[in-house]
Amino acid sequence: MPADAPDIRSILNRIDFDRHRVKPGERIDLDKIDPEGDGAFDGDRADAEAMFETLNDRLEVLQELLFAEGKHRVLIVLQAMDCGGKDGVIRRVFDGVNPAGVNVASFKVPTSVELAHDYLWRVHPHVPGSGEMVLFNRSHYEDVLVVRVLDLVPEARWRKRYDHIRSFEQLLVDEGTTILKFFLHIDRDEQAERLRERLADPEKRWKFRLGDLDARRAWDAYMRAFEDAIEHTTTTDAPWYVIPANRKWYRDLVCVATIVEALERLDMRFPPAEEGVEGVVIE
Amino acid sequence: MPADAPDIRSILNRIDFDRHRVKPGERIDLDKIDPEGDGAFDGDRADAEAMFETLNDRLEVLQELLFAEGKHRVLIVLQAMDCGGKDGVIRRVFDGVNPAGVNVASFKVPTSVELAHDYLWRVHPHVPGSGEMVLFNRSHYEDVLVVRVLDLVPEARWRKRYDHIRSFEQLLVDEGTTILKFFLHIDRDEQAERLRERLADPEKRWKFRLGDLDARRAWDAYMRAFEDAIEHTTTTDAPWYVIPANRKWYRDLVCVATIVEALERLDMRFPPAEEGVEGVVIE
Repeated sequence: MPADAPDIRSILNRIDFDRHRVKPGERIDLDKIDPEGDGAFDGDRADAEAMFETLNDRLEVLQELLFAEGKHRVLIVLQAMDCGGKDGVIRRVFDGVNPAGVNVASFKVPTSVELAHDYLWRVHPHVPGSGEMVLFNRSHYEDVLVVRVLDLVPEARWRKRYDHIRSFEQLLVDEGTTILKFFLHIDRDEQAERLRERLADPEKRWKFRLGDLDARRAWDAYMRAFEDAIEHTTTTDAPWYVIPANRKWYRDLVCVATIVEALERLDMRFPPAEEGVEGVVIE
Repeated sequence: MPADAPDIRSILNRIDFDRHRVKPGERIDLDKIDPEGDGAFDGDRADAEAMFETLNDRLEVLQELLFAEGKHRVLIVLQAMDCGGKDGVIRRVFDGVNPAGVNVASFKVPTSVELAHDYLWRVHPHVPGSGEMVLFNRSHYEDVLVVRVLDLVPEARWRKRYDHIRSFEQLLVDEGTTILKFFLHIDRDEQAERLRERLADPEKRWKFRLGDLDARRAWDAYMRAFEDAIEHTTTTDAPWYVIPANRKWYRDLVCVATIVEALERLDMRFPPAEEGVEGVVIE
């Protein structure tokens, strides 16, 4: 492990990772999980920001190690309500990490060709290869979230999908992928504030869709859909984390720490030089 | 144009963009182009670094505009000899730009399936869609570079490829893509120094391949292949830039300035709010 690891370890030791991890078999009630919560960490905002910077630098090195070793694959799934902070996490947590080593796959409304296939068909081509890290900005989980709330397919059909998703993710894990899934948990009031900011900013107003308000009106139905999806698909190998996300500094710290901790556990090393490289003289 | 544009314009006015652009019909002799050259810019290194920071910030905004408008597509091709700085440009120039908006496609040795198709088959799926920016780290140009030097296909076959490539790129341009192609020009001595650094660094030694020395030995053949490729495929719509790249600060400044200038010419605006959004109250 590189020389700087003890510092990283002492920071990671300050985070209670189990606090936001959903254990297999656990029932969750999102209405009772405080989106202002900060229980996984004992410090204040200034502490958190300092820790964040160190962990963000470390993530940069860990990505290099991941690429250099070319052995592991890393998939990070981000889900949230509108304005929940998916884009913020992508920009802040991965700031400075080599863009050649991190791909972002954003899943939008499916095209007619995509709809003509099973819902994992458009997802599979985007999973990470060896040495790669991929961020899913929305994902196959939409097929048990918006699809359920808007009744786009019958319940008998979407209900089977929890099994498919567990099997699909287990396949990826068994073939060498580390999977982390984050639900960024904000409340309706926080969303209202962020939507109002979006409307007030001439450079952001274009992002606002009247249709976004439909999802907001269906807030409770979405919460129930998230709860079911998370409970049915959190596993030891591909855990869900419900991250209190009203406060961005807390959200960012817990996300980067969870990712760094998972990558440290891979115990990666820079590979040895190719045989015969010792003694080479560049002329 | 946003309020900060005049500052950007005054910086861009200090760069002679034509200096490194290869004009259609122009013959080039890489042995006579000084890789230490700094002729496109009249300042010193400190000037360049300050200008770089401003332009890098501006690129972040231009990428947001590109995505928001969803109208244009941007393709940036990076080619160089080993250690020429492709990775450096990707990391430095795009530092801070939203990773969700910039994809990097790295083209490695083709797989057997790729080789069973025409050489553009593996490239086409990676071109940018509307609102997207894609960086090609190596590209279809390898099929007239390494393929030619190592004699992997007969000359009669690779020589036709200049036409294919021009047609392919014209298709992309006609359908809304801005294309910029950079050859990062270092000399053999600079490469030797960078290879020695790589060998001396325990965290970088794994990158060194004895095979890299074969390409180094064939330096002159590669220069002739680059000259031909660049001369045959530089067009008004998809120009090549030969960037003196021994000095990283100069290389980075000219690359970011060329990209920013091209994006400013698109004269992008944040789109208006959706009809009916005026007066919406978030409850």
